[in-house]
Amino acid sequence: MGIITLTTDFGTRDPYVGVMKGVIAQIAPATQVVDITHEIEGQQIMAAAFVLRQTIAWFPRGTVHVAVVDPGVGSARRILAAQYAGQIVLVPDNGLITLVHRDFRLEDARSVEERRYMLPSLSTTFHGRDIFAPVAAHLSTGLPLARVGPFAAELATLNMMRPAIAEDHVISGQIVYVDRFGNLVSNIARGELLTTYKHRRGVQVFLNEHCLGPIRGSYHEAPAGTPLALIGSTELVEVAVNCGSAAEHFQLGVGAAIVLR
Amino acid sequence: MGIITLTTDFGTRDPYVGVMKGVIAQIAPATQVVDITHEIEGQQIMAAAFVLRQTIAWFPRGTVHVAVVDPGVGSARRILAAQYAGQIVLVPDNGLITLVHRDFRLEDARSVEERRYMLPSLSTTFHGRDIFAPVAAHLSTGLPLARVGPFAAELATLNMMRPAIAEDHVISGQIVYVDRFGNLVSNIARGELLTTYKHRRGVQVFLNEHCLGPIRGSYHEAPAGTPLALIGSTELVEVAVNCGSAAEHFQLGVGAAIVLR
Amino acid sequence: MGIITLTTDFGTRDPYVGVMKGVIAQIAPATQVVDITHEIEGQQIMAAAFVLRQTIAWFPRGTVHVAVVDPGVGSARRILAAQYAGQIVLVPDNGLITLVHRDFRLEDARSVEERRYMLPSLSTTFHGRDIFAPVAAHLSTGLPLARVGPFAAELATLNMMRPAIAEDHVISGQIVYVDRFGNLVSNIARGELLTTYKHRRGVQVFLNEHCLGPIRGSYHEAPAGTPLALIGSTELVEVAVNCGSAAEHFQLGVGAAIVLR
Repeated sequence: MGIITLTTDFGTRDPYVGVMKGVIAQIAPATQVVDITHEIEGQQIMAAAFVLRQTIAWFPRGTVHVAVVDPGVGSARRILAAQYAGQIVLVPDNGLITLVHRDFRLEDARSVEERRYMLPSLSTTFHGRDIFAPVAAHLSTGLPLARVGPFAAELATLNMMRPAIAEDHVISGQIVYVDRFGNLVSNIARGELLTTYKHRRGVQVFLNEHCLGPIRGSYHEAPAGTPLALIGSTELVEVAVNCGSAAEHFQLGVGAAIVLR
Repeated sequence: MGIITLTTDFGTRDPYVGVMKGVIAQIAPATQVVDITHEIEGQQIMAAAFVLRQTIAWFPRGTVHVAVVDPGVGSARRILAAQYAGQIVLVPDNGLITLVHRDFRLEDARSVEERRYMLPSLSTTFHGRDIFAPVAAHLSTGLPLARVGPFAAELATLNMMRPAIAEDHVISGQIVYVDRFGNLVSNIARGELLTTYKHRRGVQVFLNEHCLGPIRGSYHEAPAGTPLALIGSTELVEVAVNCGSAAEHFQLGVGAAIVLR
Repeated sequence: MGIITLTTDFGTRDPYVGVMKGVIAQIAPATQVVDITHEIEGQQIMAAAFVLRQTIAWFPRGTVHVAVVDPGVGSARRILAAQYAGQIVLVPDNGLITLVHRDFRLEDARSVEERRYMLPSLSTTFHGRDIFAPVAAHLSTGLPLARVGPFAAELATLNMMRPAIAEDHVISGQIVYVDRFGNLVSNIARGELLTTYKHRRGVQVFLNEHCLGPIRGSYHEAPAGTPLALIGSTELVEVAVNCGSAAEHFQLGVGAAIVLR
């Protein structure tokens, strides 16, 4: 009994996602399909890359993760099936794999080309239904990864900086994701703090020009309506507003500079 | 292990859909429930009819498709259980079946009247929970269709024109669905093109007064921000804007005239 | 094969809910997860309490209902696992249990404290993933309730008035939930009507100053666009507008006074 997760920008208003589930049910009736999100906005590959990286950390070995944010559908871009941590990621080769690739060890990567695992007739506009769904269904029932196509070298990755750590212990990062609560998630991980500072208490956090003080332990260490920095559930430094939205409070989003010193 | 799909206008904010799933789980614990959409807008029966017709094309035989967009709940309208292509469609008899009925062969149709497959107490406002969910659950576990009620003649259908094909090979159709990307989906199918024109290349597409040129093979044959016509994943002629919304670009929607000549 | 339902304010845009399902799948791969809603607005505990109470009425014995609307995450608030009607409710002890507790008989209540059923490392911001998901997964596979922690006395409940019934048969209640259709759901139940009035026909319904006439049997007993009172699918007195929104029509919401006389 396999699991397939779905991350797309298809929305939940039209039948597109339902149709993908129909295709999966025909090939792999015992496979469980889990919706991660279908609300990636405006073909933002980076947001999808972040969601995919958070997702893979929590699912069991053998899970097949499908992510389709694919402005290049119908063009010559490859489709990748890559294995990390015993799980398979099935994505267009457009940078969507960036953060999984940065944080997990690549075990195998294939260019999806074997026609027998796709639908017989391929549209130019809906590879989610015609390629991703049937290939994922076959993989979820145990098809060996190597069967979907030849080894894929040189995966496309986005220019996604790791934070810079200067000699004077200043860590310079950026906001990489804004969640619906308006929390601003940075690319600075707990691990980078631990290796850079002996004592977390003395560290001050700056979001652009705004000083947020030290890193707190929970939302409740700031009064309601007040901004704070903390290590969020993603193990990354986040800027939040207790009972509010940091994105609204600061009118900032993806790309904003965050500095710890 | 059966499958039930759900298409409604109930939204996902209130507990209505969850409650239907509870009723199904009590009767058919091994049945898998697949949400197609709960965001049909403003009781638009035609949009639901379109979604239902797209859905049935991709699910396995034996699937039970429940669609509840039902402005007449509590009035005397019938509930239909009809079989097409080995699948069952369970809908209010208000025209929702129109496009499935147009495109698939009817194998049986019943008026759902047998009280023993409904909940013991029927509300006047939530037949989704009291009738559709339990009847679908029984059908998904193998209840013969004929057991739910008497044969139903004369199904209600909406006045949903097929495109008109004139002697001079002019095809006149209309926009029947707008998806969340703003793609304008028409009622002109690939098959109608093939039987009307020897060479697709010479055909010009007109949306109201706007000339869109020939039918393209993919979004990428038009520059970003530019409109084009293509045969979409539904096998219907669509008007799209590469990396944009045709509905916004033209300020047009359902009912707009599309002409091929 | 167990069932877990999820009611949260996490939305469906971010990976939070998907991650909870990954945690559940690791512990209880055969458990079915049913989304009730993830769109509880702005940490409204009362709305979640209403949704939870409607949900529990329709699911089979053995279901585990998880509801996480938790402004106090990271503070000292308890997490409760309580049994009602053979089902388990897993909630922060912040009043979310109020309406289940009012309408069902409590069979056992535990303070969730046993660390071995939680994730090894606990964040301060995402107990949905670190505590609720794994504890629910264990309970759904048959873990006895008493194992999750010590008996919990004095559950937190919100001040949620039952309607007042005066000697002259005037019932005074309030609006407690507004659904997406704009129906105004009150706290006056069918049972209170039956015990107060011999003949329902003579009763007049007042919403603030507006007289709505007697209680109708269905939406169709009022002309389109016209307000009416009826007993909704929840078995509670509701104010609706046929083919419209009562919340918009009256510009009223939760807390509005409703009087039957």
